[in-house]
Amino acid sequence: MGYQHWSYETLDRLCMDAFTRFGFTDGQARIITDVLLTSDLYGIESHGMQRMARYHKSIQRGLIRIGAEPEIVFQTPVSAVIDGHAGMGQLIGHRAMTLAIEKAQAAGIGMVSVRNSNHYGIAGYYARMACERGLIGMSCTNSAAIMVPTFGRKAMLGSDPIAVAVPADPYAFIFDASTTVVTRGKLEMYNKEGRPLPEGWAVGRDGRPSTDAADVLACITAKQGGGILPLGGSTEKTGSHKGYGNAMICEILSAVLSLGATSNHTMENGCANISHFFLAMDPALFGDPAAIRAHLSAYLQELRESPKAEGQERIYTHGEKEAAAIRDRMEHGIPVNDNTMLEVQALCSDLEMDFSSYFGDYLPPQSGFRGNSF
Amino acid sequence: MGYQHWSYETLDRLCMDAFTRFGFTDGQARIITDVLLTSDLYGIESHGMQRMARYHKSIQRGLIRIGAEPEIVFQTPVSAVIDGHAGMGQLIGHRAMTLAIEKAQAAGIGMVSVRNSNHYGIAGYYARMACERGLIGMSCTNSAAIMVPTFGRKAMLGSDPIAVAVPADPYAFIFDASTTVVTRGKLEMYNKEGRPLPEGWAVGRDGRPSTDAADVLACITAKQGGGILPLGGSTEKTGSHKGYGNAMICEILSAVLSLGATSNHTMENGCANISHFFLAMDPALFGDPAAIRAHLSAYLQELRESPKAEGQERIYTHGEKEAAAIRDRMEHGIPVNDNTMLEVQALCSDLEMDFSSYFGDYLPPQSGFRGNSF
Repeated sequence: MGYQHWSYETLDRLCMDAFTRFGFTDGQARIITDVLLTSDLYGIESHGMQRMARYHKSIQRGLIRIGAEPEIVFQTPVSAVIDGHAGMGQLIGHRAMTLAIEKAQAAGIGMVSVRNSNHYGIAGYYARMACERGLIGMSCTNSAAIMVPTFGRKAMLGSDPIAVAVPADPYAFIFDASTTVVTRGKLEMYNKEGRPLPEGWAVGRDGRPSTDAADVLACITAKQGGGILPLGGSTEKTGSHKGYGNAMICEILSAVLSLGATSNHTMENGCANISHFFLAMDPALFGDPAAIRAHLSAYLQELRESPKAEGQERIYTHGEKEAAAIRDRMEHGIPVNDNTMLEVQALCSDLEMDFSSYFGDYLPPQSGFRGNSF
Repeated sequence: MGYQHWSYETLDRLCMDAFTRFGFTDGQARIITDVLLTSDLYGIESHGMQRMARYHKSIQRGLIRIGAEPEIVFQTPVSAVIDGHAGMGQLIGHRAMTLAIEKAQAAGIGMVSVRNSNHYGIAGYYARMACERGLIGMSCTNSAAIMVPTFGRKAMLGSDPIAVAVPADPYAFIFDASTTVVTRGKLEMYNKEGRPLPEGWAVGRDGRPSTDAADVLACITAKQGGGILPLGGSTEKTGSHKGYGNAMICEILSAVLSLGATSNHTMENGCANISHFFLAMDPALFGDPAAIRAHLSAYLQELRESPKAEGQERIYTHGEKEAAAIRDRMEHGIPVNDNTMLEVQALCSDLEMDFSSYFGDYLPPQSGFRGNSF
């Protein structure tokens, strides 16, 4: 299983061409591409352009509706509920966070809960939108059910990532993590790479530990039991109920407040029905934003400089690895898995795009990989 | 190591008498007692009346100042910053959440960040204050540094619990959990009971795994390295950076927004300098509160009824165990550890209170326990 490196510009051109051929406007394609490639630049391959083929299938199946317009169905000066009308998740997410930011700029805080959307990429993208404007940003999303509750064997919650971004120097605090031990995307990457899962990540259909990525993914899709464990693993002794509780907070903010579908009711009746939540908050609600930013920056620096455990050389703060990854990938290119390139090749063929106009003479090696079950 | 069961009324009388002798007014003693005994009723012994002796020492050492008045140093219609002036944490917490609730009732949402306070008991108490008024409640607090960051060996963050309470039937969703694998209180209970810690909870002064509760606690107090691991353990593979990130969110909301002391700077210059955060939010910001409450209640019921893993009989939702514990303890009494009773006996002697007027002929067995290091 190999990786090829491609320049940001090459992948940007590919994504823009593909998304406009999907039927999106140039402006829409720009947003979707930006969300996906930001993920690839961060090194979060699972949520980057590898999702393109999957989005195409979702459009063909009618789960994602081109041309849907997000509708504000309820609002106050500090809050809103949006019905996404099954549009593209990135477009709905971008619209919702833009609204939250506008409310925060006017009233100090803005919160938007969204129902009836689709997969929106990395939660951190939206949190960062607020952070780039000097605000504290937060976003979370539910997903197809993939997490088993503590002591359960059927997936009843999503991967339920929660992202928080707070302005700081030399780089922002950007935390973006699923409330499962790992994401579905990570299982898909293990499946693509044909590797067994580490212990403690997932359970099979009987609720017992499993290391078979393909089987766990198939079980989840078939809703036959099996799923990924909450952060904290399978027992209360290691804090399983805490990851499960964090996921519940995500479900409440996204699906409950918007009266949308909780993760166990997504993907019913031909609708993805994913829910999101967005928050933007002006630190000036608590005093001088510059003093708050300086106070956080000093603490982050203290953390990075604090004594390392034996055998460790570095302590990271959240957002630091991503900042380094962006610099590296803009300079040396973005690594793309050969199996993803096989999917891109097939997509180009479907969309009557010339694969070689992006990738020259490169041809992805054939493999036994039969795709992830969606 | 034995336990005695005592009625709620007995312990309530003891706490009220002790706190008024500490120098608090009846009204203040009522709040402090209510916070502590709520914790004991929940079964969270570590944050209940076993803390009484510790609070007494803190008052004697000047860390907790009787008569301090929390001061609002900054506010907007939806937010405030309070300086606790080193008062009793429960009184400051109660005042701050009351203010957050008032703001939420007027403006939909209220957020209060607090600096210069003391240990405030369980975070869930304050979240529940909002929930009992039909609001969504949230609270978090930092603490003396006890959590090592991922790959670190020196405690730089607190146990940093985050609590969220949301109205639901037949009982509220109440999530209250430290962002460490376990709390310092749990280590203190293991120390009292003389049991080795489970693997994966703590590291010694070199950053390597340790099961010696007394040594870890002593290292933390002496700030010599060593601490409790974040939820997710010691490696990124098990999600250590996620627990660490959740703790950072707590530090930012409490200590950074209030310009208070981050956990690594608490307990300096004779000040505990603990920071808290409180949020109350009206679900009516997102539509019909009754519909939102019904939607959450239905989801909680689905979770409880969902298929169990092999070998498991029950799936809990957050707040369910606590509701059962309250019923049980109001009927059968609250179990109190013999070593805690030894501390209570000494406290009664210090305060010239008659131990037998609460506990009759009972005398706690002497043991080799020499107290937790504070």
